[in-house]
Amino acid sequence: MQQLLAQMTLEEKIGQMTQLANTAINASGVQKDVMLDSAKAAQLVRNFHIGSFLNGEAVPAAQWVRYSAALQRISMRESRLHIPIIYGIDHMHGASYVSGTAIFPHNINLGATFNPELARQTARATVLESADLGHHWVFAPVLDLGVNVYWPRFYETYGEDPLVAATLGAAFVKELQTNTEIAPYKVAGCGKHFLGYSDPRNGWDRTNALIPDQRLQEFFRPSFQSAIDSGLKSIMINSGEINGEPVHASKAILTDLLRRQMGFKGVAVTDWEDIIRLVRIQKVAANEKEATWMAIDAGVDMAMTPYTTTFCRIVKELVQEGRLTQARIDLSAGRVLQMKDDIGLFDNPMPRADRLNRIGDPALRLQATAAAREAVVLLKNDKNMLPLAPARVKRLLVVGPSAESRANLCGGWTLAWQGRPEAAYPKDVPTLVEALRREYPQATVETIPYRDAAGKSLLASISAAARRADAVVLALGERPYTEGMGNTSDLTLPDDQLALARAAQASGKPTVLVLIGGRPSIIRQVAEGTSAIIWAGLPGYGGGTALAEIISGKTNPSGKLPFTYPQFAGHTTNYHHDNNENSLDLSDFGAGFEQRGAKYKSSMLTEFGEGLSYTTYAYSGLALSDSLLTGPTSRLRATVRVANTGARAGQEAVLWFLTDEVGRIARPVRQLRHFEKQALAAGQSREFTFDIDPRRDLSYPDGQGRPQLEAGWYTLRVGSQTVRFRYAGGPLAQASTAAPGSTGALTPAR
Amino acid sequence: MQQLLAQMTLEEKIGQMTQLANTAINASGVQKDVMLDSAKAAQLVRNFHIGSFLNGEAVPAAQWVRYSAALQRISMRESRLHIPIIYGIDHMHGASYVSGTAIFPHNINLGATFNPELARQTARATVLESADLGHHWVFAPVLDLGVNVYWPRFYETYGEDPLVAATLGAAFVKELQTNTEIAPYKVAGCGKHFLGYSDPRNGWDRTNALIPDQRLQEFFRPSFQSAIDSGLKSIMINSGEINGEPVHASKAILTDLLRRQMGFKGVAVTDWEDIIRLVRIQKVAANEKEATWMAIDAGVDMAMTPYTTTFCRIVKELVQEGRLTQARIDLSAGRVLQMKDDIGLFDNPMPRADRLNRIGDPALRLQATAAAREAVVLLKNDKNMLPLAPARVKRLLVVGPSAESRANLCGGWTLAWQGRPEAAYPKDVPTLVEALRREYPQATVETIPYRDAAGKSLLASISAAARRADAVVLALGERPYTEGMGNTSDLTLPDDQLALARAAQASGKPTVLVLIGGRPSIIRQVAEGTSAIIWAGLPGYGGGTALAEIISGKTNPSGKLPFTYPQFAGHTTNYHHDNNENSLDLSDFGAGFEQRGAKYKSSMLTEFGEGLSYTTYAYSGLALSDSLLTGPTSRLRATVRVANTGARAGQEAVLWFLTDEVGRIARPVRQLRHFEKQALAAGQSREFTFDIDPRRDLSYPDGQGRPQLEAGWYTLRVGSQTVRFRYAGGPLAQASTAAPGSTGALTPAR
Repeated sequence: MQQLLAQMTLEEKIGQMTQLANTAINASGVQKDVMLDSAKAAQLVRNFHIGSFLNGEAVPAAQWVRYSAALQRISMRESRLHIPIIYGIDHMHGASYVSGTAIFPHNINLGATFNPELARQTARATVLESADLGHHWVFAPVLDLGVNVYWPRFYETYGEDPLVAATLGAAFVKELQTNTEIAPYKVAGCGKHFLGYSDPRNGWDRTNALIPDQRLQEFFRPSFQSAIDSGLKSIMINSGEINGEPVHASKAILTDLLRRQMGFKGVAVTDWEDIIRLVRIQKVAANEKEATWMAIDAGVDMAMTPYTTTFCRIVKELVQEGRLTQARIDLSAGRVLQMKDDIGLFDNPMPRADRLNRIGDPALRLQATAAAREAVVLLKNDKNMLPLAPARVKRLLVVGPSAESRANLCGGWTLAWQGRPEAAYPKDVPTLVEALRREYPQATVETIPYRDAAGKSLLASISAAARRADAVVLALGERPYTEGMGNTSDLTLPDDQLALARAAQASGKPTVLVLIGGRPSIIRQVAEGTSAIIWAGLPGYGGGTALAEIISGKTNPSGKLPFTYPQFAGHTTNYHHDNNENSLDLSDFGAGFEQRGAKYKSSMLTEFGEGLSYTTYAYSGLALSDSLLTGPTSRLRATVRVANTGARAGQEAVLWFLTDEVGRIARPVRQLRHFEKQALAAGQSREFTFDIDPRRDLSYPDGQGRPQLEAGWYTLRVGSQTVRFRYAGGPLAQASTAAPGSTGALTPAR
Repeated sequence: MQQLLAQMTLEEKIGQMTQLANTAINASGVQKDVMLDSAKAAQLVRNFHIGSFLNGEAVPAAQWVRYSAALQRISMRESRLHIPIIYGIDHMHGASYVSGTAIFPHNINLGATFNPELARQTARATVLESADLGHHWVFAPVLDLGVNVYWPRFYETYGEDPLVAATLGAAFVKELQTNTEIAPYKVAGCGKHFLGYSDPRNGWDRTNALIPDQRLQEFFRPSFQSAIDSGLKSIMINSGEINGEPVHASKAILTDLLRRQMGFKGVAVTDWEDIIRLVRIQKVAANEKEATWMAIDAGVDMAMTPYTTTFCRIVKELVQEGRLTQARIDLSAGRVLQMKDDIGLFDNPMPRADRLNRIGDPALRLQATAAAREAVVLLKNDKNMLPLAPARVKRLLVVGPSAESRANLCGGWTLAWQGRPEAAYPKDVPTLVEALRREYPQATVETIPYRDAAGKSLLASISAAARRADAVVLALGERPYTEGMGNTSDLTLPDDQLALARAAQASGKPTVLVLIGGRPSIIRQVAEGTSAIIWAGLPGYGGGTALAEIISGKTNPSGKLPFTYPQFAGHTTNYHHDNNENSLDLSDFGAGFEQRGAKYKSSMLTEFGEGLSYTTYAYSGLALSDSLLTGPTSRLRATVRVANTGARAGQEAVLWFLTDEVGRIARPVRQLRHFEKQALAAGQSREFTFDIDPRRDLSYPDGQGRPQLEAGWYTLRVGSQTVRFRYAGGPLAQASTAAPGSTGALTPAR
């Protein structure tokens, strides 16, 4: 690539650093329009040497091929050195911007599976159903940590645990980037959104997060580090601020942390319009030129401008004025060209239409459904109300805004940014009602619309129908959204849905509350009156089937919650909270001081890692190979036996939690350090093991990322079993990862 | 004091660093018991040389004098060098732990007055009614910033603005420490709680706050700096953690920031049991010895242990083992002795009973009432529903849990830590109902208990009474609490109070919603249906009168909200939020994307600095002496004319807001930089001025506290008026305030 770079003009290099949206090269200027306006495309490549385009919405594969082929032909022809463009696209849970593909569960649901194989399958389906179409650059996976349940992109994360995100994220990246079934093509992944995007203080998208350096290192870095260590070729930058500094303008994060500490060699691309946002919204630069300088100086390689070419002109001026060096431009343009070369774009730039039969493969759809079966969590099942055996049910009532919705099962980033109207989803994707009819062929599965055509509540009819039914399924939750459109100020289930739940409960019939949506709605007010609660999240095209099978008992649920489900709208914690943020039990304070909510023992409805099954598992015999670790290189092996003591087969995710009993920085009450999921037949038992490595499992980073390992006691927990051991060795040898001259501080020192 | 110190044994010095609760020296071991067990006291002074005691609850002045005199006699006798003890007490809004004193509004209400004179009067009343009783050390003022409305000590703050807290806090400290009416006594103040205590991430007391260094400097430091610059003699330490590091173990905060950067020379005392909390709760130390070492090494001078003398033994061991130096002990013991000497304790150690008639002085009670009149805020007054002229009212209904409560008007820290049962409050303090009867002598002022004796709701009777009445006053809100007892997970007004409000509204009669309590309850659900809303906060003994007079019109309200009143339980911001945390208007996103709450234009019910009056004010003619500032020493004078254009006299707090239009660290949308309150007769107008000093008003600190001054545009706002000007000078000369060798980082680097 250095040879190619040496032949390029400054303008050509800058073009490689520029990414425009499809709206710049189609006739209508709207994103769903995947029809090339060749004249526009030719002009942009000829005059601005644009090296990358992005976006579009779900259209048929053949249309994508036509579009991509025409665009690439123009790029190769108009580019003096015949450099192919790289096309970026938001395939988020399967090839979601191609018609007829398999839509897998969103990441929050994959987190619930604790099964990295399902993340791998999602990546495989994504490339099988899109790589031939000229989609070389998939803007996935989201590696943000789902610690803030208000954040409207919460569902795009693998949940609140760094290890789960690191493990599933790496599995996704490896498959996406090394799948050989798509040869001669390769695809570049893009880890989003570097870093700390997911915890805005006020819960709204693209706003300020308060994250001290130490916490950034301990909680937010591991998922990105794991993906980078797995070969991740690009990252997209967090559009928000950390501690008041926009990440797009943070050299501490984009260079000191990302490049020097984490060793990332790939492409750092901005998110949508984020350089001009430094001027218009965040107001840290007085004009676009200053903002552009700040962003490139901080470490940006490519600007998703994505509407204008002003970036090209400004960067050229900055070089001419000596504010940016040629070497700086070469670095970024070189990284983009290297990524193109790495995925073989120079050799195979053109899409192909000769194996489009791969797209819409029913086998992939079946995989998506299989993933959905593991991806929902049974939160509550009083008196084993579930499963509702089909033989016992003559009449089933299904109500709520998601009863007949495909869109709600899939959420945002499905067919289009904010999802599409119901009619746009494939008719062969079963809604919850349709899937229940399939599961209860002998029963009348009745559904009453949530509101009539005029928007009037049909609560009275629903109450009457509930009294007639043997059981009621409430399909509640949220409509599709992402980003700012999903900003919310109160997660409490809306009044009309609460009223619906109360009406169903008032019937006295068994009620199953199914929560469909991207975030945990607060359901405290109706949870007590409901015997069974299923968190469905956004399970995708297989969601209706998976839910119906779990309700009927055909599928034994195995999902565990990958986040902490809050009881209250105003107090949310994560499972790895500090000791003094513990669960609410005001009776500790003595009588007379009950404040609001004091009747609830905990501020959590369901803890991280919990989830019920139709069978039972017994954990026994937790043992350690030794009770003492004498140094950083010594090892302990922990073993535990898990038996399926119930009457039916199941899958159990065995979660190993460690607690560092004393630490100079207040330690989390527990942290997941190892997990493994296995199938267990009825009556079967297996031994599970966890090899404890002090550096990996017992240390925590300081603000500069240096691992701290402190002598002292640790508690290991798995299932019902607990054991303590001691680390009696010294600290880790400190090979500072910071380059000379780096202050190491990630938060702004200015 | 150096001479005295030189004569002291190590044990005697350590005794000066130790503070025990009254429970260690009374017979019963409960805090309300202010009766000395002389044998216990003598043993503690003799054997452990204890230099300070604290606590108790409200008892008559004469009893305090007996107790204090006996304790001081024992201290002087048993102490080899006749060192007097210093007694610490939680007088928080007046001398609140003495019977029969004036109870002023809590700080959050003083913030609403924007009137530092009222903070001064509160301090004066406090010392006039307690200094003779042996109360030498008043644990006030709270200088924490009230930015988190969930925090159960929110009401103890002056609100969310640093300038208001700095100004009122300094006025309080100056009066408390320099009042000469109490001669020969002097009193030491204690600024609480250094620092960043008020913004725990999850809203619960004594938990982790995420506060980057820059934000700590810009928002949390100024109130403490202002008090220190005003001579503050002691600070109490934040019991929580910042960024995972307990402040009691933070050398960066207790030494680098407090001593080196801020120049504090006085005593740093722990809060209740906070050294052992490092072991039991925060778990940053394996045992009490390590915790004690960490705390003293970090910078603690005195341990409020307060139950045991283990601290004395441990510190001695640490010195003997060479882990703490004699010099370190001398430093802390010397600071304590210096404080005792500064307030004249060596010369006047004994309390006196010869002017106890000062206590319970009606003039002070009247001052408290006058303060309350300025301290409540009229948030809403549709169609000028208020005032309800007495001539128009024949029958007034007053309902709600605070209608007949004195305790609720006062909140926590009144007579006792969590307040006391209703019967304990003075009968001559009018409840809201009693005060309304006084204001409406011709009318029937009816009240119906909120619940009957069995706790059953009397909603039906209330509805009937509302239909009979000419107007309804709803007295809603919270009961007294502080600290962990006040932890809450949802600020939404409880269901039973919402039901009460809806019942009143359903009557169709004019309804005044009066919100009494320490935090803003979320009232969105009933606010629209209510014509008039008064935020009463915790106005103290004068609250009933002030509220009744405002309702009747005798008093013209002048309070302005010192915090941002949120609409929603799950999205709270401060007025000085970043640009991208702006108010909620999802219609910006186009049709079809309304999520919950989208019908509300803003996430704020009422903004900081807003408050209605029965007259009107017109702002005009905002002018600047120049449109350009050429350097750090140049000045601008801004002037504006404010006219009372209504028919009655009022007081107007003129608030000057500045916006730094562009800053390297994202700047707040606006910041209060100057305020002044003046009386204006009907028809009168006055000119108000603000002299702009670039260093003070235009700069902001970096993470090390160095002021940054950036060239660029600023917007000045006052009332309806706006003007822009430019700073075209250079940056400030940097004289680093950090000592050589200090890293300057406040957040833990480990």
